[in-house]
Order: sequence, then structure tokens, then C-alpha cells
Amino acid sequence: MSRRGSRKTSSRRTSRRATAEVKTEEKKRIKEKIEISPESKEVIEKIKRQANAILEGFLNNNPVIEIPIRGKSNIKFNEESGFIEIEDKSYVSERVFNNIAHTRKFMQYILVLDFCKRLLETNSTSDLRDLYYSLKRSIPGSREKTFNTQEESNPIIEDIEVSMDTWREQLHISADPKGYIVGDVIFEQTLKNRIYEIDCNNMGTGWGIPSNVEPDILKIKEINAKYILAIESAGMYNRLVEEAYHEKNKCILVALKGQASRGTRRLIHRIAYEENIPVYTFVDGDPWGYYIYSVLKFGSMSLSFISNKLATPKAKFIGMTMTDIKDYGLEETTHPLSKIDLKRIDDLLELPWFQKEEWQRELKLMKKMQVRIEQQALASKALDFVATTYLPEKIKNKKFLP
Amino acid sequence: MSRRGSRKTSSRRTSRRATAEVKTEEKKRIKEKIEISPESKEVIEKIKRQANAILEGFLNNNPVIEIPIRGKSNIKFNEESGFIEIEDKSYVSERVFNNIAHTRKFMQYILVLDFCKRLLETNSTSDLRDLYYSLKRSIPGSREKTFNTQEESNPIIEDIEVSMDTWREQLHISADPKGYIVGDVIFEQTLKNRIYEIDCNNMGTGWGIPSNVEPDILKIKEINAKYILAIESAGMYNRLVEEAYHEKNKCILVALKGQASRGTRRLIHRIAYEENIPVYTFVDGDPWGYYIYSVLKFGSMSLSFISNKLATPKAKFIGMTMTDIKDYGLEETTHPLSKIDLKRIDDLLELPWFQKEEWQRELKLMKKMQVRIEQQALASKALDFVATTYLPEKIKNKKFLP
Repeated sequence: MSRRGSRKTSSRRTSRRATAEVKTEEKKRIKEKIEISPESKEVIEKIKRQANAILEGFLNNNPVIEIPIRGKSNIKFNEESGFIEIEDKSYVSERVFNNIAHTRKFMQYILVLDFCKRLLETNSTSDLRDLYYSLKRSIPGSREKTFNTQEESNPIIEDIEVSMDTWREQLHISADPKGYIVGDVIFEQTLKNRIYEIDCNNMGTGWGIPSNVEPDILKIKEINAKYILAIESAGMYNRLVEEAYHEKNKCILVALKGQASRGTRRLIHRIAYEENIPVYTFVDGDPWGYYIYSVLKFGSMSLSFISNKLATPKAKFIGMTMTDIKDYGLEETTHPLSKIDLKRIDDLLELPWFQKEEWQRELKLMKKMQVRIEQQALASKALDFVATTYLPEKIKNKKFLP
Repeated sequence: MSRRGSRKTSSRRTSRRATAEVKTEEKKRIKEKIEISPESKEVIEKIKRQANAILEGFLNNNPVIEIPIRGKSNIKFNEESGFIEIEDKSYVSERVFNNIAHTRKFMQYILVLDFCKRLLETNSTSDLRDLYYSLKRSIPGSREKTFNTQEESNPIIEDIEVSMDTWREQLHISADPKGYIVGDVIFEQTLKNRIYEIDCNNMGTGWGIPSNVEPDILKIKEINAKYILAIESAGMYNRLVEEAYHEKNKCILVALKGQASRGTRRLIHRIAYEENIPVYTFVDGDPWGYYIYSVLKFGSMSLSFISNKLATPKAKFIGMTMTDIKDYGLEETTHPLSKIDLKRIDDLLELPWFQKEEWQRELKLMKKMQVRIEQQALASKALDFVATTYLPEKIKNKKFLP
């Protein structure tokens, strides 16, 4: 890479002042011809349009930013699309620069917007913590700081996501990574100007799913899988990897490790729709496992503004179900429900996206049986029982919950 | 793989009874010539010796298992080796079969020992949850269950580890995986009879570090790195990966993601000593970061019986230090210490492995300055400052804490 020579000098310079970074990075781009993806260019244009609108507001002496309200009152479950969505995007809260109660947040919005634009222009990614530290400074001529804590900068990114109809990863801000993937798929990952070919056929126990899997950073180059199996626990995932389940059944295994990260949900969504591949979900038989499934399938309330990017309505539910207990003779491996479990079941029974008959029946059955069952309870049959019998039977006979 | 044909029949058979699995697995082994590694053979012999000793006890009508005590009273810091160790392995607690208070745990010990032997003989691995479910059953002719909860089976594995002078991973029981690795190293991972070549040069954002990295499962095939950089946060790791720090500096980057997992600590230990490669640790400048470093370097009290397998006494500490704040002008990016932080500093000041002058000075300075500083505070200089200036300067000038 040619940049090595000039690196030291330029970085010394940038260390003087945080904002000096922009200029240096811009110089570098010219020098090294950093390629900006069409996706990023589009987002940069969006940012510019937003910035121009704000500028126009200043010229008319009333700068306002409109942010769609994403509280419970403005969220609905769209039965047709299968997504949890914002009901009315024109139901907005206004941030008015001339209102002294809003001015600080207004300034912060612009700082963060500018930071994202710079990231995109230099083909860099960053995370919430870097963002906070990059923008935190004293405001000259005052005792104020731009941001006092990260709790102040985190919500601004969400404001930008929802007001600009974009999402964090498109703005090159990453969330915490979590989850593993293995199976017959080859990715192409671009980190700045370097390209890596990630062959998940030859990954052993699996590739760590990164935070940012947007198409400009991660391309699906080749895929040869009949379905994706999304698995709640790392233990069950490891069991299936060891049994070569993915190779024998030509599928992709994904370990969610509890509630799936944004990156994992987005990656499953992309493979499912871009490559038209079915998704089966395999979680614990308890309200927490069922909720993990519902977030993967329908989305969540807090991220309702990007359900159509993160969620996978066509995902199906394999197990564990309450009827599995009898069907597979697992009675000795169940656990009694706690009070918190029972309360959670009642919550789920009320959720609009759990109203399907099959789910109401399942949840009520759980309440009646007063037990929960973990995925790994299947090991009581034999360690490989899940791979040789349980999953193949369920998938062959399409024994899914919707 | 040739086993596919006979799979279904045999698995159906095993599903009838958990223990039937042994025989089927043993049959498979003959059919498929499952190769057992020399390491596993050695552990199997150890298990047999232990079992024979117990059997002899039965013949003499007084079966006893001796388990070295690993409480605080029997732990010391060995300044010479640099490990936190069990002081006196002959200081044991006895588990006496004929003592009715011990009989249940005695039985459980033998069940788990047998389970591990079967795992090793079939070249399988498993985890604590699988182990629990595989062994949980009603005892014929009684109302008792072998195990009531996983809280009962978990400590038994520790008993076996410490009494047999082995460790979980050698017994093929895995812990929860965590952490990422990237850089110039090629592994060979064996899962049952399949071998994968894991080339960490071409891993993009990194390979997920597995739970079990014992030599029979993970071989270091080729390595070409000047040092390992162990990094506390995923965010900082991603920053360095994006800057191609590992490629420009010919090193291996490891993301610990907080307190390092057993697998990550073991892998760092193995690379450090088998390949004679230095280890630098880069954590937050607070008592929690310093403790993460100390566990990586010296080991921990709870796993004191395998410090010499997990810990890396030659590891050095890069930062963040209290003096970094002034040296790099990071005053605006510090955070005040909480009461819990202050209490934790006092704890650390007392620990035998924090008695070196430099660490006493560092900890007292933190107490005096009343602030902590995160790794990502370096982003306030410029996003690439850590990669182009901070780390290279520290490493070149050997500015380490011991």
C-alpha cells in the first residue's frame, strides 16, 4: 500500500486538533484514490440534502429538524409485510434551533452528521464510542462541552437514522459484533481499500460476524446453501458444526449467541432476500427464545424504523416447542417456569405479532405445562440426535411454527 | 464422508437410551477409523488410572477421591514463575463413598468421568450444558435423579480437572467462546475427522476464537508475526483492523471483548510460548482493564490450578496509563472515578501480583487523579492516531508496564 510513506507526517499533524483530521483524510483520498462505493455516495448526497435544508432554515431564520416519533404510540405491526413498523412517519417531533431548549441537541445533530459524512468520504467505519470521543471537546469561548457523556451522543445517531430514513451501518457507524457463521457461502469484505475473500466453507468453527455487513463492505460472492439455520446458543451451534451438519445438509449455520446482534440480523436478512434462501430458527423453548425468534422475524419496537432492513418475515420456527417434549420423550429434561418466565409469557400473548393461532396455542400450552425446555436437552437422547434425527425430521416434514 | 449411509439407523437406535450411545459411537469408531490424538490417548489413560484407583478402593471397601483444595487459603502468587498457583496440592479434601453425605457427589464424579472418556474415545467435544443433559436421568429403583440442576454438574468438572491435574479442554468439554483473531498465522483445526486450514491472513475482520484450542484440535501450522497485540474492546480492535495495523506492523491482533475467555487466554499462551512471540496488552485505563491484563498475565484465583496453561507471564502492558493522559493531551476525554472504581483500585493495591513498584505507583496515581481513561479516547486525536502514533511509539520505545 502506497500510503505508508507519508503516513507518519500526516498523522502527527492531525493529532493537534481533532477537526484537522478531515483535511488530512481528504488529502489522502486524493493521493490514494480511495474508492467510495455507490451506496456511500448515495448516503453522502442524502446528508448534503439534509444539510442544505438546514442551511435554508438558517437563511429563513428558523432552522428546524423533523424527527419521526418512534414511541409505542406510533408503532404498528404490519400484517401484510410482516414488519413491525413506524405507523406514521409524518408524525414528527420538531427540533427548533431558535428554541433554547433545543439548541444544544441541534448543534449535536449537525456535528454527528458531519462526522458521518467524513467517515463515508474516507471509506472508514467507526463505532459509537469513537464517535463520542472524536466529537467531544470544549466549545471555544464557553464553558460548555460538545458532549458531556456518551449517553448524549448515542441518541443523536438514532435521530439521524430515523429522520434521514437511513440506518447506522449505512452511515458507517458499527454496533457491537456478535455471532458466528459457517457453511457454503463466500463473502468479499472490503476494509478501506483492501479486499478479503471470506470462504465460510473452510472456517472450522466459524467466522466472526462483523458489525457492518452492508453491501458496500460485505458482498455475497457465491452461495450454495439450501437454507440458513439460525441457532440461539453457541453450544448447540458448536454441536452441529462438529457433526458437520452444514456439510451434510448443505446449509449455513449461524450462532446468534442469545439475542441476535444488528449485524447478524442484517446478514440473515440479506442472504434470505438477495439469494432467496429459506431461514429456519432454532431456539430454546421458553418465552425468551420465542422473543429472539420474533425479533429476527418481525423486527423490534426500538428499531422499528429499519425493520425492513433487519427483519426476515419469511423465517420459520423449528423449535423447541412444547409438543417436542412428548414427541421426543424429553419429560425428564424440562425445567419449571419462574415467575418472571410466566410474566413474560403473558407479555408475549398480548403482542400483535404473536396473535397467530399456533403461537397463542403454544404460549398457552407452556403456561399450562409450567415448564420450559432448552435446545441442548436433546443431548439427553444422544449427542448427535439433534443432527441426525430432530432437525432432519422437522425440516423434511415441514413441522414449523409460523 | 462414508458414515452417511448407516447414520440414520444407528441414531434411531441410540435415541432409545442415552447410554446406548457409547456402543454406537464405539461401533462408528471402528467403522470410520476415528483417529484419537496422542494427547487424548494420554488423558484416556489418566482417566483409566483414576478409575482403577477408585475400583481398588471399592475392593478394599473404602473408595476415596482426593481433591486438592483451591480456596483462597491455598493459593499463592509464585513470583519466580509468574503464575497464580495452588500452594500445596497435597492439601486435599476427601470424598468418601461410604460417607452418606458424599455418596451422591461420588457417583456424579464417576458419571462425568465416564462421559469425558466417551467423548475422547469418539473424538467429540461437548460443553457443560450438553454434559448435564446427557447425564441427567432418574436412577432406576429410586426417586433420585443423577443431577437435579446444572449447578450440580458444573462443579464436578472442576473437581475432575483439579484432582486429575488436567483441564476442561483436555477432557473435551468446552467453555463459551468469545474473541476474534486476525494476522499472519495459519491454524489447522480438526473437527472429528475433518481438517480445516484457517488462514488468519485472509479473515477480514477476523476469525471467531473457538472454545477449545488444545493442540489435538488446533495446530499452529505457520506463523509470521512479530508480536501479539491483545485488545480489550471490540471497537478498538475493529479500528486497528480497518487501519491494517496487523499488516503494516506484522503482528497478530486479538479482541478479548472484555475479560478474555478461556479459549482466548489459552491461545495467546500457546502462541507466546510455542512460537516464542511477545505479547502486548492494550486495555482501558481503569481498574477493570488492569485486572483483565492481570488475568491474562498471571492467571486467576478460580483457575489457579491451570495458570501454567492459561496465563502468559511474559505479557507486557502497553496502556492506557495515567501518564498517557498528559503525554498525549487527553485531559478532556477522561471520566471521573465512581465509588466502585475506587474500591476496586484498593482491592488491586492489595493483590500480591500488583506489588511491583510501577503498578503501585500507577494505581495510586489513578486514585490521586480521580479519573479513568478508555482506549478509544485516543480517537479524540484522530481516528488513526492509535495506529499511526500511539502504538508504534510505545512499542518502539518499549514504554511498557511490567
